[in-house]
Amino acid sequence: MKNIQTLKGFRDFLPKDKRVRDFVKNTVKETFEIFGFEPIETPTLEYASLLMGKYGDEADKLVYSFEDQGGRKIALRYDQTVPTSRVLSQYQNELPKYFRRYQIQNVFRADKPQKGRFREFTQCDCDIFESDSTIVDAELLTVYYNVYQNLGLKSIKLFINDRNTLMNTITPFATKDVDVFSIIQSIDKLDKLTELAVVKELVTKGLNEADAKEVLKEITSAQMSKSLAQTVQRAVELGVDPESLVFTPTLARGLDYYTGIIFEGKIPEYSGGSVGGGGRYDKLIGELCGRDIKANGFAIGFDRTVEAVIELGLVPEKATTSSQVLVTIFDENLVNDSLRTAKILRNNKIKTEIYPFADKMGKQLKLANQKSIPYVIVIGESEASEKKVQLKKMETGDQNLLTIEDAIIEINKG
Amino acid sequence: MKNIQTLKGFRDFLPKDKRVRDFVKNTVKETFEIFGFEPIETPTLEYASLLMGKYGDEADKLVYSFEDQGGRKIALRYDQTVPTSRVLSQYQNELPKYFRRYQIQNVFRADKPQKGRFREFTQCDCDIFESDSTIVDAELLTVYYNVYQNLGLKSIKLFINDRNTLMNTITPFATKDVDVFSIIQSIDKLDKLTELAVVKELVTKGLNEADAKEVLKEITSAQMSKSLAQTVQRAVELGVDPESLVFTPTLARGLDYYTGIIFEGKIPEYSGGSVGGGGRYDKLIGELCGRDIKANGFAIGFDRTVEAVIELGLVPEKATTSSQVLVTIFDENLVNDSLRTAKILRNNKIKTEIYPFADKMGKQLKLANQKSIPYVIVIGESEASEKKVQLKKMETGDQNLLTIEDAIIEINKG
Repeated sequence: MKNIQTLKGFRDFLPKDKRVRDFVKNTVKETFEIFGFEPIETPTLEYASLLMGKYGDEADKLVYSFEDQGGRKIALRYDQTVPTSRVLSQYQNELPKYFRRYQIQNVFRADKPQKGRFREFTQCDCDIFESDSTIVDAELLTVYYNVYQNLGLKSIKLFINDRNTLMNTITPFATKDVDVFSIIQSIDKLDKLTELAVVKELVTKGLNEADAKEVLKEITSAQMSKSLAQTVQRAVELGVDPESLVFTPTLARGLDYYTGIIFEGKIPEYSGGSVGGGGRYDKLIGELCGRDIKANGFAIGFDRTVEAVIELGLVPEKATTSSQVLVTIFDENLVNDSLRTAKILRNNKIKTEIYPFADKMGKQLKLANQKSIPYVIVIGESEASEKKVQLKKMETGDQNLLTIEDAIIEINKG
Repeated sequence: MKNIQTLKGFRDFLPKDKRVRDFVKNTVKETFEIFGFEPIETPTLEYASLLMGKYGDEADKLVYSFEDQGGRKIALRYDQTVPTSRVLSQYQNELPKYFRRYQIQNVFRADKPQKGRFREFTQCDCDIFESDSTIVDAELLTVYYNVYQNLGLKSIKLFINDRNTLMNTITPFATKDVDVFSIIQSIDKLDKLTELAVVKELVTKGLNEADAKEVLKEITSAQMSKSLAQTVQRAVELGVDPESLVFTPTLARGLDYYTGIIFEGKIPEYSGGSVGGGGRYDKLIGELCGRDIKANGFAIGFDRTVEAVIELGLVPEKATTSSQVLVTIFDENLVNDSLRTAKILRNNKIKTEIYPFADKMGKQLKLANQKSIPYVIVIGESEASEKKVQLKKMETGDQNLLTIEDAIIEINKG
C-alpha cells in the first residue's frame, strides 16, 4: 500500500480543509432551509439507462458506468437534475406541489483533470418546481444572493438575462448551417473574448459578417424583458441589493435547455471565475421523465466558493481550530483529576482533547502547539488539592491558576 | 424514464426521512468534535488494488470494482478503515501525533439486499491512533456513550470484553482443525444461540464435546482483565454511567483483527439489534500500510440508530417540520407586501416559504396543510394599510391580526 495514492482527479480532505468545507456546506444548507427548501438524497449508483443519453454525446463519455455483480448496467451520479427528475416522477403522489428541494451531494465525471477541475466534486442544487411565476424566479436569485451574504462574500454580483429575449433576437439570423444554439455558444464567450473575436468565430461557423455584426449589435443593445424587470423588482423587495443585480444582455449560459431567466454569480475580488448560476428550464423535466414540470434552479460552484472564502480571509475562527483545549496528564496518580476536568469542559460544550498518558510535560505542550490548540490545562498535585487548574494560553504563554468555572469563561474567549 | 426506479439495495431519502438522518448525523458529528476528533474525507473511488485483499476473500466479492475510461482498475469505498490507513501512510508528516479522526461517509457493498441491509449506507467512524493507553480506550467508550445520550437514547448499554482474555482462555483448546478464530466465531453467537447450540456447533466443527463444554465454562466465568477494569474506571470518571457498562466475557465480535478491548452498543427498548461497536486493533494498520500504528476505534450503526430514534419517538420538533410559515399572496397588487414580510421573517431566521402566485386562498391554505407548515400569513388590503399581518395557526385555526414583530414571537413558539 505504501505506493498507493489517490486516483488522479480525486482528493483527500485533511481536517484543516475539511473543516472549511463543512463550514461552507452548513452555511449553504442553513440558507436554503431559511428559504423553505427541503433536502433530498438520491443514491450514488443508478441504472446506467437513467443517466445515458440525457446529457448529450460528449457528456455520456464522462459518465462512470460499469456492470455490477448481477450483470446490471449501473452508473455513478453525474449531476443532480436527472436523479431529481426520476424522484419527481417516481414519488409524484408523495411530493408537495411547488416542491422546493435542495440537494448537496457529490457527482462524478471522468473529465480530464486540470486546475480546479476534479472527477469527484460537490454540487449544491436548489430548485422550485411546477411554477413559472416571477416570484419563484425572484426567490431563487434571493436565496443564491443570501448564501454569499451569509458566507461574508458580500460583493457577489448576479449577472442576469432572459434567454427568451436572446432567442428572439438571434432567431432571425440563424441559418441552416449556423443554428440558434451555435450562435448562443459563441455569444456565451463574450465574457472572455472581444466582440471582434466573437464575430470572427461566427463567420468561421458560416454566418456572413454583416449578420454577425448585426446580431451582436442587437444583442448588446437589448432591453430587459417585462418579466425579467418584474423579477428584479421582486428580488429587491426580498432583500437583494439592486447594485448586485447586473442586467447582461450578452449572457447566454451554454446549456441549451434554458427557457427564461438565466443568471451567473461572480465575486469581483475572487480570481477563479464564476461561482455558479442557473435559470429557468420549463421543458427539460418533461423530456427527462415524461411528466411536464416547470422548473427554475441553480447550482452553487462549491469548490470555487470554498476557494473564494479562503482567498478573501473569511474562514471564521471556529472553522480553523480543532480542539479548544488540551488537558494534560501530570502523572499517573493524577489521571482521574484530568479526566474529571475533561468531563466538565465537554459538558460545557468545549472541544476538549486529553493527552493519552503521563508523558513528559514538554511533549504534551508540543502536541498542543502542533495541533494549534489554543489552551492547555495542567493539573498537578497542588492544583488537584486546591480543586483548581493551571490554564496556559499557548499564544502568549500566560498561565493562571483558576477554578474550572473561570477556566471555561477564559477558554470561551478564544 | 417512467419505469426506471432506484437499484435494489439503494435508497432515495425524501425530505421527511432526510431531515431525521441529518439530525442524527449532526448530533454524531457535534459529539465527536466535543471530544476533540477531527474530520477527514476520502474519495468515493480508489485504486482497486488498495481495497482488494484487505477484507478477506468473501468480502472481496462484495467490493464494487470496475475499469475506468483510462483502463485503471478502480473500486468504490467499501469501508473507512482501509482508506484511512492509506491517509495515515500518505500524509504521515502532516498529521498530528495521537491523531483523533472521525469520518462520516457512505460505503458500498454488493451484498444481498434484505431488511435493514443496503448496498449503500452511511458509516460514522471514530478512531484514535498511536497509543494503547487505557485513557484512549476510555475516551472511545465515552464518546460512543455520549452520542447516544445526546440523541436521547439514554438507556444505551455498552457490552464490553477484552479480546486478549478471550484469546488466552481459548488458545489451549484450539486444535489443528478448529483454530482460535473458528472458536471465537461460534462464541460470538452466544447472544443469539443457547450454550447447548454453541457446544453443538463447536463439536460439528471438530472439537470434542468435553473441551467444547469446558471452553464455554471457562469463558463465561472469566474475570475482567486489569486493563479492562482500569478502562471502565476511567470511562466512569469521564462521565459514563457505570450501569451502562456491562462486562460480557462471552462477547467476541467477529472480526479477527481485534487485539484488546472490544465493545458493542445496544438499546434495550429498540428491537433492531446492535447499534455498532468497535475495539482495539493494534496490528491491522501495520498490515495494511506497512507503518505500525496502534489504534482503537468504533463505528456507529447509522441506519439502526436512525431507526431507534424514530421508533422511540425521539425526533425533535425542529427535525420534523419543513417551513415554519407560509406567506400567502392575497392578490397581485399586494405581492410586494408579502415579499417584504418574507424578507423580515427570514432575517429573523424563520424558515419561510412564499406561495408562488395569487392563487385562490383555499388552495394556498391547502398547500400549508399538505406540507404540515404550522403557520400561514395573510396580508390583504386592510392588513397592508395597517402594516400588520393575519397570522393563522393551522392546527387550531386561530387567526390574529399582529405586527410582524409579534408574529415572529408567536411563530417561534411553534
